[in-house]
Amino acid sequence: MPVNPQVGRLDHVRTPEQTLFTPRTPRVVAARRLHRRRDRETTGRFLAEGPQAVREALARPGVVAELFGTPTALDRYAELVAAATDGAVPVSPLSDDALDALTETVAPQGIVAVCHRIDVPIDTALDRAPRLVAVLAEIRDPGNAGTVLRTADAAGAGAVVFAGNAVDPYNGKCVRSSAGSLFHLDLVRATEPVGAVERLRAAGLTVLAASGYGETDLDELTDAGGLARPTAWLFGSEAHGLPPELAEAADARVRVPLHGRAESLNLAAAAAVCLYASARALRAGPGVSTAERA
Amino acid sequence: MPVNPQVGRLDHVRTPEQTLFTPRTPRVVAARRLHRRRDRETTGRFLAEGPQAVREALARPGVVAELFGTPTALDRYAELVAAATDGAVPVSPLSDDALDALTETVAPQGIVAVCHRIDVPIDTALDRAPRLVAVLAEIRDPGNAGTVLRTADAAGAGAVVFAGNAVDPYNGKCVRSSAGSLFHLDLVRATEPVGAVERLRAAGLTVLAASGYGETDLDELTDAGGLARPTAWLFGSEAHGLPPELAEAADARVRVPLHGRAESLNLAAAAAVCLYASARALRAGPGVSTAERA
Repeated sequence: MPVNPQVGRLDHVRTPEQTLFTPRTPRVVAARRLHRRRDRETTGRFLAEGPQAVREALARPGVVAELFGTPTALDRYAELVAAATDGAVPVSPLSDDALDALTETVAPQGIVAVCHRIDVPIDTALDRAPRLVAVLAEIRDPGNAGTVLRTADAAGAGAVVFAGNAVDPYNGKCVRSSAGSLFHLDLVRATEPVGAVERLRAAGLTVLAASGYGETDLDELTDAGGLARPTAWLFGSEAHGLPPELAEAADARVRVPLHGRAESLNLAAAAAVCLYASARALRAGPGVSTAERA
Repeated sequence: MPVNPQVGRLDHVRTPEQTLFTPRTPRVVAARRLHRRRDRETTGRFLAEGPQAVREALARPGVVAELFGTPTALDRYAELVAAATDGAVPVSPLSDDALDALTETVAPQGIVAVCHRIDVPIDTALDRAPRLVAVLAEIRDPGNAGTVLRTADAAGAGAVVFAGNAVDPYNGKCVRSSAGSLFHLDLVRATEPVGAVERLRAAGLTVLAASGYGETDLDELTDAGGLARPTAWLFGSEAHGLPPELAEAADARVRVPLHGRAESLNLAAAAAVCLYASARALRAGPGVSTAERA
């Protein structure tokens, strides 16, 4: 867990409900700017909206910098307010207008947290010897990225790497699509994807590139025991696939078999099939942990 | 393949390119109305836009009633125009304005087909003894429905059933999300989902309800050989799950294992894992075909 030295400096006295923050309150103005990538980059903060995301964020000490909610929502989610207060996180009530300013969904659920960025260097993630890793290479669509992150969490991945010119993992739609999973695993940002692949392999992980044109059939690889060892899966964008140099850098390029007449699977479906094939093989097979191999 | 008696009555002389159809041309006005479900229901027609969908629609004789495209697109996709002409399908050139009127995407690819509905009664689909069927029960989101349809095609399903108050399969976003797969398999619409489940079981299919709260673990069911026989999977909406009476009507309620801390998978991912588990078991195992059981 990242330790954040700023938390101690924040005021954690709850503002009385009668003085609701408006869209013009300076802290709301500052938080609203986090809808923009540039401001997320410069401040190292991002927004997580809705009770599920807020709950998962609060479960990681030091992540939530500030909690906002309408009076109704702060009453409804009293356990989240209590967790915030226990963690010395300031909680402030919002007017409905201010909530609209801080949220992007049509029907916001009244509560939103300002969070400190949570990504870790790839070596930190690898030190924990994850047996399953997903690498999102050049994936631009935030909904797709968040969905794959959620699926990776469900399949038991220990880390997800946003590599190259991928979407910002702190993009609001990506955070929402991850349904809280953003906070469950080690998030890594790697600007240099081929270097990240080299680090993954050096840590003992087999690197597999998911590709509709791959030379290796997923079922055949599974039958041959090729998934029963720590694995990093590389996924590219649905529109452009994996960059050729990244596909080449992998140990194998693996295609999900197409039994019917569909020309391809969409990204979320392909990632689910690959990650769950690994999850099943890792649990069933004579897997060797990264730590044991190192 | 449905035989459509209307095709023979349509004029299939190609209009010269100099007389482009505009948004006010009566046939464009009529086609544009197909964006509305009501008009799709009353006419029995729907729109398929883009070269991939048009190609798949033309591959089924009697499905395409009329083809429209900008002059540029009709030149670019000359093989589609030739296929249409061979099938006595009228081809008409559109102005850019008329294309905008007939398409829903931001960057339409210049070509759009008016198609006759292609769904068949469930008994017709079952007569072909499908070994894998997906039932979309009360799924309202057209993108989700189209994605699951595409995944079902990729996994080798012979039929997809839109059951109960599900989205209209001919909704433009559903057609686009299916990426042509709508035309690859038997499409069934069943207003009465429990009755459809009874028909599926009577035809020898095991009926499995995908449910995050299911009593049966997917991996355990796979290991026990429970997927190595003809199977119909029931999928409900992400927001509401399966209607209880439908989950009860299934032979088992099956959960995809959650190895990490995600609370659930999204619909597209869960459907991909379930359908591919079946596809693998059906190919590997001592499967008994529906025809042999009947």
